[in-house]
Order: sequence, then C-alpha cells, then structure tokens
Amino acid sequence: MKQVIAAVCIQCGEKHEAGDNTYTCKKCGNVLDIVYDYGYIKSQLTREKLASRKDYSMWRYKELLPIEEGSAPALLRAGWSPLYKADRLGERLGLRNLYIKDDGQNPTASLKDRASAIAVVRASHGGMSVVACSSTGNAASSLAGNAAAMGLTSFIFVPERAPKGKVAQLMIFGANVISVKGNYEDTFRLSAEAIEKWGWYNRNAAINPYLLEGKKTVSLEIAEQLGFKAPDYVAVSVGDGCTIAGVWKGFKDLYEIGFIDKLPKLISVQASGCCPINRSLETGQPIEMMDENTLADSIAVGVPRNGEKALRAVRESGGITVNVSDEEILGAMRLLGAACGIFGEPAGAAGTAGLKKASEQSLIPKDAVVVSVVTGNGLKDVASAQSASPEPVHIPPDMGLLTEEFKKRNLMKQAEGR
Amino acid sequence: MKQVIAAVCIQCGEKHEAGDNTYTCKKCGNVLDIVYDYGYIKSQLTREKLASRKDYSMWRYKELLPIEEGSAPALLRAGWSPLYKADRLGERLGLRNLYIKDDGQNPTASLKDRASAIAVVRASHGGMSVVACSSTGNAASSLAGNAAAMGLTSFIFVPERAPKGKVAQLMIFGANVISVKGNYEDTFRLSAEAIEKWGWYNRNAAINPYLLEGKKTVSLEIAEQLGFKAPDYVAVSVGDGCTIAGVWKGFKDLYEIGFIDKLPKLISVQASGCCPINRSLETGQPIEMMDENTLADSIAVGVPRNGEKALRAVRESGGITVNVSDEEILGAMRLLGAACGIFGEPAGAAGTAGLKKASEQSLIPKDAVVVSVVTGNGLKDVASAQSASPEPVHIPPDMGLLTEEFKKRNLMKQAEGR
Repeated sequence: MKQVIAAVCIQCGEKHEAGDNTYTCKKCGNVLDIVYDYGYIKSQLTREKLASRKDYSMWRYKELLPIEEGSAPALLRAGWSPLYKADRLGERLGLRNLYIKDDGQNPTASLKDRASAIAVVRASHGGMSVVACSSTGNAASSLAGNAAAMGLTSFIFVPERAPKGKVAQLMIFGANVISVKGNYEDTFRLSAEAIEKWGWYNRNAAINPYLLEGKKTVSLEIAEQLGFKAPDYVAVSVGDGCTIAGVWKGFKDLYEIGFIDKLPKLISVQASGCCPINRSLETGQPIEMMDENTLADSIAVGVPRNGEKALRAVRESGGITVNVSDEEILGAMRLLGAACGIFGEPAGAAGTAGLKKASEQSLIPKDAVVVSVVTGNGLKDVASAQSASPEPVHIPPDMGLLTEEFKKRNLMKQAEGR
Repeated sequence: MKQVIAAVCIQCGEKHEAGDNTYTCKKCGNVLDIVYDYGYIKSQLTREKLASRKDYSMWRYKELLPIEEGSAPALLRAGWSPLYKADRLGERLGLRNLYIKDDGQNPTASLKDRASAIAVVRASHGGMSVVACSSTGNAASSLAGNAAAMGLTSFIFVPERAPKGKVAQLMIFGANVISVKGNYEDTFRLSAEAIEKWGWYNRNAAINPYLLEGKKTVSLEIAEQLGFKAPDYVAVSVGDGCTIAGVWKGFKDLYEIGFIDKLPKLISVQASGCCPINRSLETGQPIEMMDENTLADSIAVGVPRNGEKALRAVRESGGITVNVSDEEILGAMRLLGAACGIFGEPAGAAGTAGLKKASEQSLIPKDAVVVSVVTGNGLKDVASAQSASPEPVHIPPDMGLLTEEFKKRNLMKQAEGR
C-alpha cells in the first residue's frame, strides 16, 4: 500500500506498520489512525482523472483507501449514494442551500456498508475466510451481507433481546448467528474471546481502524457531488463516534491533496437520552458512561469505544453539538418523508432533527451550504415509523362518506388540487 | 414529444394522440401501447453518446421515454440499480453466466419506483398537483415517496387489512391514506370514483400505459451494463403482468434502434398458488381469475388487469413459464442472501426460484447468459424472512458452551476457517 505510511496511535504517536491488521496500539493500547502519504496520492490522482471514472461506488476513491494492491473487489455496490438538493425541506428549516445525503441507499441499507466493504476486502486479501462482530444493528447486517457476497463465513454475536426481524435478516445472509443469553456487554465479551481463539477478522469499527476509512468515503462523495467543494456544515448523528470521525477524515484527506480549499464545520447530533460524546464536548470533561434512553437504537451507545476520535473531529472542525429528543427525531422522520420522499430510520433522521434545532437557534447562517447525512433506511425499523405516523382515514367504500371525511379533516383543498 | 408517435390500442389498433393522458382506448376500452419513432430516436442517440452520459439513473435514457420537453426532473434517483455477476449462485443453479439485477436498490426499495417516477414527472408537467392509486404494496410506497420528493399531493387507497407497517411508510411520506373497510375490489372502486371526481393523476400501471415505459428502463440498463448485449434469458416474477411487459418493451426498443442485435427469451415466473397468466400461456385459454394463495404478496394478483401485454411479451420472446411454491420462494430468498448478499422480498426472489427450477429441468442451457431481476427489497417484508430462516444458536456467554454448540452443529470447520 504505497498510499499508506503507517497506523499511528492517536494517543502516544507510536507507529505500526500498516497492513498487518494490528487493531490497537501495541504500546499503550489506544486506537490507531491510518496515515496517508498525501504527496504520493497527489502524484497519482487528479480531480479530472477522478471525475472521468465510471465506477460509481466508493471504490472510485481507491487511491485514498487502505486496500492492498491486487485485492479482490468487493462484490456489492456500496457508496455513491444520492446527494439531493432539498429545497422544500430547506424552506421548512430556514436554510437556503440544504442537501440530503441518503445513505440508506446502500446494499444493506445503511452507511455501515462502507465499513463492512473494507472489512471483507481486507480479510479476503489477508487470506482470512471468517469475519465476525457483535452487534444487532447495521454493522451486523452489513457485515453479513458483504461477507456473503464475497464468499466469506460470518459469525455474528447478538444479545438475546435482539429483534427477531433483524436476526432474520442476518440468517437470510447465511450468517452464523449466536444469540447470547445476557446483555450487550456479555455478548461483546464472548465475541472478543471467540475472535481471539479462532483468529477471525474483527469487524468492530471502534477497534479496527481500517473501517473508518470506508466510512470516510461518504465525505469524498459529498465533496465530489458538490463539484469538489466542501459544504459549510455537515450534520451527522453520533453513536460510538466512528461515523463522524470518518466524515471528518474524508474532508481532511481531500483538503490535504488540494481537491477542496476549506473544511466544513461538523454538527454532532446525539439523542438527549444518550449523549456522552456531546456532553464531553460541552463540558470539556472526559467521556463518561450514560444510560441508553432513546428509540434511535443505532446511536444508543452509552459507552462509546471510539469517542476520542469523535471529540477531536468535532473540535478540530470548530463544530457544534446538538441533542435532540425522541419526539424531535420522529418529527424529522416525518419531515424527511413528506418534504423529500426520504425514509430514514430514527438514527438516520436524527442528524436532520439536530439541524432543524440548530437552525431555529440561529446557530447556522441561512445561506450556508449544509449537508445532512441520513445514515440508515427507515425500512429497518418500521415500528418507529408507526409511532411517528398519524392514523389514516378509516371509512367504508362510499363517496359521500369520503367527501365528508375530507371536509372534516380540511383535505378538500388538497383533493381539489388547490 | 418528437420521439413518440401515438398511444395505440393493442386490440383494435386505434391511435390516440400521445401526451393527453388518455389511459385506455376510446374506441374499444382496451389498453394502449406507447409507440415510438425509432428513426427519429436513432438520429438522436448513439451507443457512444449514451455511454458517455454521467446521469446514472433511469433518466439517462430520456430519448426512449414518454416525457415532454421541458418537464421538471424527478427528484429521487430511480434506476441504475446494480447488475451483479453471481458466480457462486450460478454454481448452485448450474448456470455459468448468471447475473442478478438488484432492483431493491431504488429510492423506495422496489422496481416500481421506475414507474412512479414517470407518473410524477408527467403529472407535474401536465399541471396536475394530485396523484393517486389504490395499492398496499410497492406501487403505493413508490408513488407516495416520489410524489413527496416532487412536491405533489398523493391520495392512496388501501384495504383495511393492509399491514400497519406498510401504511406507516405511506404516512411518513405524507400521503393521504384512505383505509377502506372492505376488500381490495371495494378499495379499487372507491379510488376510481374519487380519481374521476377530482381529476387526479391516475397511477395505476394496469391502466396507465406510460408507467410501463418507466419499468422498461430496467432492461435498457441490463443491456448497457452487459456492454450493449442482450442476455439469452431474463427471469422475472409476474403479478399483474406490467413488469414483464415492460422488460420486454425495453429490449425491443434497443433492438429497434440497433443497440442490441438479438432479443432474450423471457422466463415468466408465477406463484403456483396464483398463476393466471402462466396458466393461460400453458393452456392457450384466455386468462381466468384465480385465488391468491401465496405469501409473495406483490405478485398475488388473481385478476391481472394487464395480462394481455404479458401474454404477448412471453409468446413473442419464445419464452417459458415456471410456477413455484412458497417453499421454493423462501428457498430462493435464502440462496440469494447466502450466495450473493442480496435480500429480496418473496416476489423479488420468485424469479430466482423459477430460474432454479427451470435450470433443474434442463430448460436453460448451462452456458446461456441469464439475468434474474430481484424486483423488491426484503426489508419490506421481514415476516417472510423470518419464516425463511432457521433458528440461531442460543447460549449463555460461555466459551465452553459455544465450542460445544459449534461441534453439535458441525460448525467447527467453518469456525476454524477450513
């Protein structure tokens, strides 16, 4: 990997050879960051060369990815999700240049496919035929799906409370699912022991530094889709912190190689009921554990294992923090649906909820170019969509009753197209 | 629309001016077909010109679509779904050149987005601000989503038995949902009366001939993704018949303008419990009503309103029919998931189930280039995924027990990566 210099500890600075799948610092145990040779990358890639590529997936950015030469390609088409100019939603939010990046449009319907794609390609190149993680959510389904496509075996550890529907999705992908009688911590520990014992490839974004490199492609795309310009603000929901750190890394990469000439400010959105990272950013105190009181399950992370990278990203960007209630999240789901035709899961809509709040508090200039990332598809959590929805009109098949009901609900203007 | 000559009745041949939103023949009441001026299209479009386009959506084929000049673009990115070479699935099916077109990768997660996109663009250009349909399935959600993105009002009529989750999706898109106390026929009638009374744009693929033109883009893409070559066979699941007729129309268009030099054979796959179109093809008798005994709800159509176009398409192509049981459909869901990382809804996997059966019966040469279209995402129907799935391993968090369980289930080889 000529493009990668080393995997460097973010705490003590210890350098590790990139590519040997060291996950954490051998000296102090902290998390690693993949460091690139931007000079070399600049000599290999120009904006024009990139723009002329026909591979519309995350792999169009191969020079910026920690993938060994000669690796087999990932088989599912992750990335290059649409970036929509959302004028009607912008009007509602008081923002004149609002864009929505719909990352629910990915093979297994979440941004996590970008990380899992890196995992299966690196595992496969390293001759490892088994990948594993503990999760009930998007990381699990994306790993199971991408592993299946690549012909790898997957072992997924889930706590017994995992929703049956999500488990079914894993089973459909042929994953070996181990349902652990215990809580998430028990599940995580058992998975760690098993990964250690059998030497499986560890797809745990909080530990494995290569996965963040996949997530950063969402920013590479945003900038390219805006014509190689960075937005002024990017709103993203935050759970364990890997995604927002990845978002930041992507823009920094492009800045370093001169593809964009400034960096955006990050808007870190957490659920009020579970916001350890935002709390730390607001108080300046270290991250402390919190309860997980939110329906946005994908960002309900009380003990963020990768918080440090997130803290650094938000601070470096000069960003802001916003915490939103579950009510505000459900409201953002309705807004995204009705004003944009985008169906986000609660964690996916949380970024937009935060944006709305920040805009109402005049924290964002009205003319700023703002991107909100929808990180997962609402079809993953239909129960939450139900709680966000009003009741339909219920009537017998009779035109008179229909008209009456329309009048009662003030729908006549809409029916008459006025 | 210089590219369109007329809307011609498929029964009596009566010509209607294209573009005035006549849905059915004014003379005999039968369905219409949009007829193109292929000479004109050939003068406007070459393979090279098309291949150089950067619009990777169904709109890259605008010369072949019945869209008025100056129409506002659809805002959701429908089309250009991935076409995967599926070697490991091919091995399982005894086919050496198998491709899967994953149309679950669309804005609202089904092929129907291609039709609804045409509907909202035509409605909007015609100055109509309200669109409507009666459906509980993919047509409804795609119409609601595409209408929301376009800023149109939608009225969706559903029978009261419609699953709450699907209704919630419609409500999230801001659709006005009318839940009718009655069966599907009652619902359809009420919607027809309301559409007539208020002059709404009618998004009913079985009646509105423009929608099939959107569906055909799936074939335009398949051919382009294969390097402007037609496959030998295309397998697709069949409900009311519009989709398979659209698939055929797309290949015929490309053949007429010289972009491909042969036409594929269609494999028409229906559920054994509801196969009125295949029965008619097999017996030569007219289509007769059937019960709707299948879990594949999206193709459970006992009275196909557009059967004639489907019959003609399959016959013209020299195609074959295959009926599959619900068990075979669930088996195909597992196969697609485990061998390709693709999660299809039952109707979406039915085409692949039919392909498997046809291959086992030696109806398809092993070297044929075969495409199976997955028409919808499995996240739309998680309950069926549950019925298709085995139970996971249930254990307390203990390595000894885990190892024991692996031995019992013959998972040790997999765990050890052998």
